[in-house]
Amino acid sequence: MSTPAPHGRSTPAGPRLPEGLRFSKGHGTRNDFVLLDDPDGAIDLDSAAVAALADRRSGVGGDGVIRAVRTRAAGVDAPADAPEWFMDYRNADGSIAEMCGNGVRVVAAFLRREGHVREDRFPLWTRAGVRTVEVLADPTPEEPAWRVRVGMGEAGISRTGRTVHVAGHDLEVTDVDMGNPHAVAFLPEGVALEDLDLTHRPGLSPEPEHGANIELVVTRGERHVAMRVHERGVGETESCGTGVAATAVAAALRAGDDSRLPWRVDVPGGSLEVGWTDQGEVTLAGAAEIVADGTLLL
Amino acid sequence: MSTPAPHGRSTPAGPRLPEGLRFSKGHGTRNDFVLLDDPDGAIDLDSAAVAALADRRSGVGGDGVIRAVRTRAAGVDAPADAPEWFMDYRNADGSIAEMCGNGVRVVAAFLRREGHVREDRFPLWTRAGVRTVEVLADPTPEEPAWRVRVGMGEAGISRTGRTVHVAGHDLEVTDVDMGNPHAVAFLPEGVALEDLDLTHRPGLSPEPEHGANIELVVTRGERHVAMRVHERGVGETESCGTGVAATAVAAALRAGDDSRLPWRVDVPGGSLEVGWTDQGEVTLAGAAEIVADGTLLL
Repeated sequence: MSTPAPHGRSTPAGPRLPEGLRFSKGHGTRNDFVLLDDPDGAIDLDSAAVAALADRRSGVGGDGVIRAVRTRAAGVDAPADAPEWFMDYRNADGSIAEMCGNGVRVVAAFLRREGHVREDRFPLWTRAGVRTVEVLADPTPEEPAWRVRVGMGEAGISRTGRTVHVAGHDLEVTDVDMGNPHAVAFLPEGVALEDLDLTHRPGLSPEPEHGANIELVVTRGERHVAMRVHERGVGETESCGTGVAATAVAAALRAGDDSRLPWRVDVPGGSLEVGWTDQGEVTLAGAAEIVADGTLLL
Repeated sequence: MSTPAPHGRSTPAGPRLPEGLRFSKGHGTRNDFVLLDDPDGAIDLDSAAVAALADRRSGVGGDGVIRAVRTRAAGVDAPADAPEWFMDYRNADGSIAEMCGNGVRVVAAFLRREGHVREDRFPLWTRAGVRTVEVLADPTPEEPAWRVRVGMGEAGISRTGRTVHVAGHDLEVTDVDMGNPHAVAFLPEGVALEDLDLTHRPGLSPEPEHGANIELVVTRGERHVAMRVHERGVGETESCGTGVAATAVAAALRAGDDSRLPWRVDVPGGSLEVGWTDQGEVTLAGAAEIVADGTLLL
């Protein structure tokens, strides 16, 4: 609980954001972001400003804040041949994050919408390195979302005999590294995904040293699964891009499917499609929507 | 959990809001609202549209949606001499709500900001009848919040011997009716407000037939208390206007204070001031902030 300030001021005093700051709000499978168009690196975005913007009650609100900025103006280390645009992604608490599979799809749509990029396929610089995005479909009156695919890097798979304890069962997991660690488990017959209580984090045995995101999965059809995710340090969320990729990788392995045909993964926030490039990179595709444009009065 | 639509569409199909709809976002003690300026009643705001707007991830996000509309254009029953402006307040799920002590303060600031009202003191029509608001201070560069007082009606007090079970204690409550029912209890020495676990609703004995909001209160100083509130059917919230009023009424009664001098009530979302008019009406005063203006792209 915050300590209330003396009456008359209901928001914590902090560094003021520029009055009149323009923002947009967007989401991918209900993973939502405050978007800032800052081509020349003019916005000084410290962690307090990020937290104020991302506050869902006294700010604009989002899971994170993404500043779209030219790499050379972003004040970050980047090779000379780095892509023109940098995704400056911050978590809602103001901390730095390396990557976000839904965020990079939304910022790709935003860069196209702002007219900064005209190509359908282009690279982005992120704190995790280069990510290649591909705009598969523009919004239409019937379907106001963009459809964007992003390369998520290669998956590292290991089977350590680790188990997750859920709904009275000890289920063997597939450990999948998508830059961050995932433990993917398939529910046995008779256990409904909808009935799981994920208020608390299911226990892993043995517990990985740095924890893991936990994905619980059921089969829905051919190359089609549904899952719920408990994110490390966060709790259950409606979508997690790397978790969706990890789930499809584990599901294809389990099904003995080496066709490299795409898998559909349903999450509470929507549905995503996971594919593989000829080079073996995992790709994540789905809707990315710009919901609103606004001006900050703070 | 929602059933995900086929991939490519991550938001539930529903009645479309008008594209380009202008909105603002505001809050009072972190009770936040999507505000719509609709003087002539042009916006068809059904419950699905309200829920889409109030969705914190795929919409704008808020505890509720407030349409500021001229009473005669609002399509509601109102006496011929009803105030010019109507607060059309809806809960985030699209259901109708009668009143909201923080919402009426925010919409008063909004009406002034939009230039629809020039007076400092003016009546508003609400589903609970007439409410009189008073703008005490306009925003300044140093203090971007308005300061607004609203008349909350008279308080009905009863002592039924009811108790609330909290932190191992059975505490006698003061039952206060502010149009909705409240059970106000003062914590004993040695129990810190900050340490209470309000994840679950504390039990009332006997339980009121229609439930009650529960306020747990500590003294901070002269005519100054702090409280946390568990709202009926909602859970713990950062602020509740009627709960703040009920708390001050119970605190003044307990202190034997009939001075009618104002009481300060701190809540997690900020701080409010409760006073009494010469006619015995309870008033609620505090910050009301317009955070952003925007345009919907949905």
